[in-house]
Amino acid sequence: MRNLKVNGERLWASLMELAQIGATEKGGVCRLAASELDGEARRLFIRWCEEAGCKVTVDRIGNIFARRSGRNPDLPPVMTGSHLDTQPTGGRFDGAYGVMAGLELVRSLNDLGYETEAPVEIVAWTNEEGSRFSPAMVGSGAFTGVFELDAALATRDNNAPELSLGGELERIGFAGPAPVGEHPVAAYFEAHIEQGPILEAAGLPVGIVTGAQGQRWYEITVTGQEAHAGPTPMPRRRDALVGAARMIDAVNRIGHMHAPFACATVGFVQVSPNSRNTIPGRVFFTVDFRHPEDAMLTEMDKELREACAAAAATQHLEAAVEEFWYFPPTPFDPTLVGAVREAAVAQGYPHQDIISGAGHDAVYMARVAPTAMIFVPCVGGISHNEIEDCNVLLNAVLECADAGIIK
Amino acid sequence: MRNLKVNGERLWASLMELAQIGATEKGGVCRLAASELDGEARRLFIRWCEEAGCKVTVDRIGNIFARRSGRNPDLPPVMTGSHLDTQPTGGRFDGAYGVMAGLELVRSLNDLGYETEAPVEIVAWTNEEGSRFSPAMVGSGAFTGVFELDAALATRDNNAPELSLGGELERIGFAGPAPVGEHPVAAYFEAHIEQGPILEAAGLPVGIVTGAQGQRWYEITVTGQEAHAGPTPMPRRRDALVGAARMIDAVNRIGHMHAPFACATVGFVQVSPNSRNTIPGRVFFTVDFRHPEDAMLTEMDKELREACAAAAATQHLEAAVEEFWYFPPTPFDPTLVGAVREAAVAQGYPHQDIISGAGHDAVYMARVAPTAMIFVPCVGGISHNEIEDCNVLLNAVLECADAGIIK
Repeated sequence: MRNLKVNGERLWASLMELAQIGATEKGGVCRLAASELDGEARRLFIRWCEEAGCKVTVDRIGNIFARRSGRNPDLPPVMTGSHLDTQPTGGRFDGAYGVMAGLELVRSLNDLGYETEAPVEIVAWTNEEGSRFSPAMVGSGAFTGVFELDAALATRDNNAPELSLGGELERIGFAGPAPVGEHPVAAYFEAHIEQGPILEAAGLPVGIVTGAQGQRWYEITVTGQEAHAGPTPMPRRRDALVGAARMIDAVNRIGHMHAPFACATVGFVQVSPNSRNTIPGRVFFTVDFRHPEDAMLTEMDKELREACAAAAATQHLEAAVEEFWYFPPTPFDPTLVGAVREAAVAQGYPHQDIISGAGHDAVYMARVAPTAMIFVPCVGGISHNEIEDCNVLLNAVLECADAGIIK
Repeated sequence: MRNLKVNGERLWASLMELAQIGATEKGGVCRLAASELDGEARRLFIRWCEEAGCKVTVDRIGNIFARRSGRNPDLPPVMTGSHLDTQPTGGRFDGAYGVMAGLELVRSLNDLGYETEAPVEIVAWTNEEGSRFSPAMVGSGAFTGVFELDAALATRDNNAPELSLGGELERIGFAGPAPVGEHPVAAYFEAHIEQGPILEAAGLPVGIVTGAQGQRWYEITVTGQEAHAGPTPMPRRRDALVGAARMIDAVNRIGHMHAPFACATVGFVQVSPNSRNTIPGRVFFTVDFRHPEDAMLTEMDKELREACAAAAATQHLEAAVEEFWYFPPTPFDPTLVGAVREAAVAQGYPHQDIISGAGHDAVYMARVAPTAMIFVPCVGGISHNEIEDCNVLLNAVLECADAGIIK
């Protein structure tokens, strides 16, 4: 295993410059998918890639590929990257870290005059977050055939349904000419902020991601009877919000029941008519269940449906529970996971294996190429650990692109 | 007690014509305060009043007064009316009934060539609902000195904070020239839909309203820690929505605990950031408590604060409970309530005493003039009972305006 090192100061400077695009007062970033700010970040990334000698292409769903060629330019590339979009109250690193780490890797290879056997490609996927346009990870999903391209381009802005993802990509100049997919990949690595507290709490700079949790997402509509808040006696009410509140509590209970691996979240709630002095007639909310085992997700599904039916019955409500999205648990490629672990060992970095609780573009990429991820600790640890993880990424990528553990 | 009768068919026809302004597909009405549709309804009402020989004035907050003079035009008028605005999913009658009943009363006096001693005035109050602009009952509240005029005009559209009530009234041509208040009233009667199920369930056409419940309204902000839904283990979460859900459930429990008179409602909820895969960091919601006894409202206040503190503690959240509005229980004037009851008896209508659970303009008017209300049963009963209640209104008003039980 090689033991090369990146330029940590340069990586940090690029992260900080990028984080100014959409910077929020609290020190975070708001850079929603296919917004003007997303476009600005994309253009900065492309400029940096071209300055580093990469050939940049953009596909029809706005995924950006920056290729550094190899001794054998016809080999499929070893790809690394992540995404540039953020949640409305995103952090400075998140997906941006994986993209900038890919860029730093290429810059470091240039500094070293290092020619790989296979090409190396940096990727920035479109709309990983799913915050402005649902579902999430649409760029990598379309690339890997999970989503039909036309349907993906037609997804609507959650807050402005007159806007489509395709239209917004055109507006910011990122509805590219390249076809989506038809693009063989030898191996895919993604470095990403953990987004959870485990590495930070353990004081470890590197997480070796062995796979991703399965996910079941639901949309639940509770229907009761809208009525004036004053003159309707309590026993006569069919208050949709009271039923929904008990269901939300039950979702949380189901998560705790299956600790430590289960996660259960209600993130979105819409009350109708949402007026102070009107008993709500309708509540719509979402449920997000995660677990590394499929059988347990099936069990949680059963518990959710029972809890909703029970809460609805006591308030004389109707509850429609619809599965909105299902994502099976995804183990990553053992050879690539091994290469990441060996790179961490070679550098002498403390590390631990970890399961990804969040969806990542890597989870879709695992369907079409051997895939692995490296987790960087969140928040407090970030200002020191970004170099260590990028060093691990560099050497694991070279193991694939150069000596060739992947044919 | 006189025993005169109105023209029920004409009243019904006017109600139906008015209900076309803002008519919804489900047979209801959406006519928000100070909207274009509110303006249209106001202009129709004014035209009808002028056709009935009334002199119309509009005050600075858009309250409309239509006066039919009396033998002694210097006496303060006996006033009756209600409001023309509706909730987003309002019914066809609600406040419109009270305004149209006042109009029908004047038209019937014209038919009879009946000259009252004191003038009779029909009133349409501005923004009773409080749905578009909070708080509710701003027109009567400003008229009776409960609200400062400038503050009332400056209240903001809940969904478009760049719009003020004053600005919107100007836009629809109803920021009138008359001062607000400075307008003595001998007695105030308001006929209104019950908005509750009691009269309909009892099969009674007339409710004699003896007073109004007290109300305490709260704004509650629950603060936790926003985090990604996947990678944050359940025990580490500070999920503001889980805390809020338990508080919403507790509000409902408090209402049931103090049955049959207590009402307890959460009508408005705002989750932040409201994203499917983000643990909510902040939830804002409202609480509406009602009870005819002040001491019980104080008890409910204590229970609410305890329940919120308990729910916040288990999830490591902060909960800020702020009283937003307080309205003491309001008994109506015994003499006027007696006049309404006697008019119902004289007409031979089955009736019962009832306490108003909802706020009404009459509750503010009770601060400046002897006041009474007549309740019309909701929903199923409406198409037959509107005549009976208008007959009761006519004779009770005449008892005041003519023979003069009020000096």
